[in-house]
Amino acid sequence: MRLLIFHGNLAYKVTEAVKISVRDDAEVDEWKDFENCLIVFGAVESSDEGRLSEVVNKAVEEIQLVADRVKVKNIVLYPHAHIFPRKLAKPKFAVRLLQSLSQALQEQRFSVHQTPFGWYKAFKLECYGHPLAETGRSID
Amino acid sequence: MRLLIFHGNLAYKVTEAVKISVRDDAEVDEWKDFENCLIVFGAVESSDEGRLSEVVNKAVEEIQLVADRVKVKNIVLYPHAHIFPRKLAKPKFAVRLLQSLSQALQEQRFSVHQTPFGWYKAFKLECYGHPLAETGRSID
Repeated sequence: MRLLIFHGNLAYKVTEAVKISVRDDAEVDEWKDFENCLIVFGAVESSDEGRLSEVVNKAVEEIQLVADRVKVKNIVLYPHAHIFPRKLAKPKFAVRLLQSLSQALQEQRFSVHQTPFGWYKAFKLECYGHPLAETGRSID
Repeated sequence: MRLLIFHGNLAYKVTEAVKISVRDDAEVDEWKDFENCLIVFGAVESSDEGRLSEVVNKAVEEIQLVADRVKVKNIVLYPHAHIFPRKLAKPKFAVRLLQSLSQALQEQRFSVHQTPFGWYKAFKLECYGHPLAETGRSID
């Protein structure tokens, strides 16, 4: 799994469906706003398949490390296919893993919003620009 | 080289110096704005060293393909260390490659702005959200 993490604000709206077999429900064209959060772009990889718990646990650890350092409790989990996954996982598994990751983060007392899987989205990402405001993590 | 490309608007300002040996000149705390452009986050990798022209030519091709499809002539070239480079190039080489890439794009009649290398930056990235508005390209 790849995680590209920003500290800042995010607004996004769903624009149109991606042509794949699996997608979350979504309200099209409705902007949603989040302030002072971690924006976690995540790509689930085929090497994650069959090791869901291990990958989720490691991802929680990595996200928690960043969140503790920048002192935020709000997370936006945003599926992203273009952050250089070695090979993308099957969509059905990706949805399952992202859902598990969301739940595991909530169990660590984070407030988590998941942007819908399987949709193109317009977004406005504001990154605060301090030394810890951008980071990439690979879960191997 | 890794290229993470967005179609949209970008505003950024330089915040503070990264602790590395090489950096571009920069004006701190001054916002710069770009509309309807390709924002090209680029990570130069150690495997690019010794093959500058080849990598630049391939990168121009990839960027041109996207630019033609979304019909833009403005490019912001933005060095980014966290978009999963296999191994980062030496900073001095990275600066040289990004400069060459900027020149090569200008020779293709693009208007190019390079954000300064070696500085943390705050940014506001607006991505338009159509199917071609986000893409990742690896130059091997």
